Amino acid sequence: MSLLVVGSVALDSVETPFGKADEVLGGSANYFSASASHQGPVKLVGVVGDDYPVEKLEPLKARGVDFAGLERATGESFRWRGRYRHDLNSAETIETRLGVFSNFRPKLPEAFTDSEYVFLANIDPRLQLDVLRQIKKPKLVASDTMNFWIESRRGDLLELIKHVDILTLNDGEARQLTEQANLVQAARWILARGPRTVLIKKGEHGAFMFTKDSIFFAPAFPLESVFDPTGAGDSFAGGFMGWLARTRDLTDENLKRAVVIGSAMGSFVVEGFSITRLLEITRDDIIRRVAEFHQLVTFDRKMDA
Amino acid sequence: MSLLVVGSVALDSVETPFGKADEVLGGSANYFSASASHQGPVKLVGVVGDDYPVEKLEPLKARGVDFAGLERATGESFRWRGRYRHDLNSAETIETRLGVFSNFRPKLPEAFTDSEYVFLANIDPRLQLDVLRQIKKPKLVASDTMNFWIESRRGDLLELIKHVDILTLNDGEARQLTEQANLVQAARWILARGPRTVLIKKGEHGAFMFTKDSIFFAPAFPLESVFDPTGAGDSFAGGFMGWLARTRDLTDENLKRAVVIGSAMGSFVVEGFSITRLLEITRDDIIRRVAEFHQLVTFDRKMDA
Repeated sequence: MSLLVVGSVALDSVETPFGKADEVLGGSANYFSASASHQGPVKLVGVVGDDYPVEKLEPLKARGVDFAGLERATGESFRWRGRYRHDLNSAETIETRLGVFSNFRPKLPEAFTDSEYVFLANIDPRLQLDVLRQIKKPKLVASDTMNFWIESRRGDLLELIKHVDILTLNDGEARQLTEQANLVQAARWILARGPRTVLIKKGEHGAFMFTKDSIFFAPAFPLESVFDPTGAGDSFAGGFMGWLARTRDLTDENLKRAVVIGSAMGSFVVEGFSITRLLEITRDDIIRRVAEFHQLVTFDRKMDA
Repeated sequence: MSLLVVGSVALDSVETPFGKADEVLGGSANYFSASASHQGPVKLVGVVGDDYPVEKLEPLKARGVDFAGLERATGESFRWRGRYRHDLNSAETIETRLGVFSNFRPKLPEAFTDSEYVFLANIDPRLQLDVLRQIKKPKLVASDTMNFWIESRRGDLLELIKHVDILTLNDGEARQLTEQANLVQAARWILARGPRTVLIKKGEHGAFMFTKDSIFFAPAFPLESVFDPTGAGDSFAGGFMGWLARTRDLTDENLKRAVVIGSAMGSFVVEGFSITRLLEITRDDIIRRVAEFHQLVTFDRKMDA
């Protein structure tokens, strides 16, 4: 398995109705890696400041995450402080300090340049493009983005998506990017501009996968208690890409399974702060939850009454 | 099949980004009947004023809707005027004129009192209770409600749900009624107070069916264009109850199928104003859409890679 992620390695401080956590592992690349590591090894490219408690990354190393691409720069690490209210639907950002992340210029170690499965987490699309140029022969490239880049780097983002196989974004971002209120039309708009697959994430309302010929939907798992929604999207991506890199099978059928595995990983991560739950669960837990997803949506369509 | 609905028979005036309709058939009982009539005959109980264009009900009569329980009172019919904005998510009510509906006291014709499948559409829970008392031996009673009754008739509503098998309500209403932000917990709260099944409708985000031992979810069908969302919930209920009344099969498996048939009917009705689309579609259209739902969510959960 040859899976690469480029993204943020941060320190999060989060408050939810159920508790608070200070300076815990955060950032898209951490969440992605913790999730994907359940399928196989992951190569990570990112940057931290000289204040980052790198010993906290040990559990990820032990799970097969290769940090050879983690640059240590002089200065402060990326920190995010946020709060979720009662309904847990949207994070309220209290403070974002980019620190060394604002000067991040991803540089792939030579050994990473032959990665086949690549996830470009949410960073400046110019950097995402730059990463792509460093990879010799990618087999599958997926890219995430966010409202900030859609607004401020629209041209670069449109250039980027010409070169990616899969674009992942949330429903609000899909509408913003395409100026289409209808998600089916939004997906078509994107599919006409490069990607052959679009994953539209709707948070607690599940995720759609669109291709030119098919639509697949997986609900979010109906959990009795959601503890901290941070990282659900990147954990989803980690499960999705991890499964594809593990199986090396890009059929429609396997992509659907990957979406459900992604949804399962998203449902685990929100059961605790940071990546805690992703470090606890086993392969059996994942298989069990995928089976629960199957039960949740499966019906017999026979209508001969 | 012996299916009864008690609810509103109204005249709607609706404006959407795609057009407008004036004084068209509306009201929960009309939508429910138009939808359920695809499965078999429906008995309707409601009230209209002496200004109601009853000739507009002819297509429903032709489809097997029995209007023997439609009272004609002196005065104005129930009228609703609303508007949907660009995102079509929520109706903005411009005007509600209850007219004769405000004095509605449902009185079942003798021939209706042996109905077995009963849908109590969204009316005052005291009237819903009163209807229940008039029915000799119901086999399955489902009831809808809304924020207004949850606020103003909480005690009556809680009394009502002791006597219904299925409660249908939307996610916001479920949270309001139970004071639980989490839907799984909200469903449990309701299941502990009478109903053995709870249907939580999330509009464009699909619908959950909860029982004590199981959770089932059906997405809303991803339509490329939604024309007018009015009536989706009652058409959902019509498909659901119509199917159960037709098949007389209350197994879990058949309830799941009923949820999907309900979702299919909800997806048709929003393709046009009023009940237009429900009058156009055929049994084959329904079977085809149910198959599309099946494709939308079906995956192979085998994970032995």
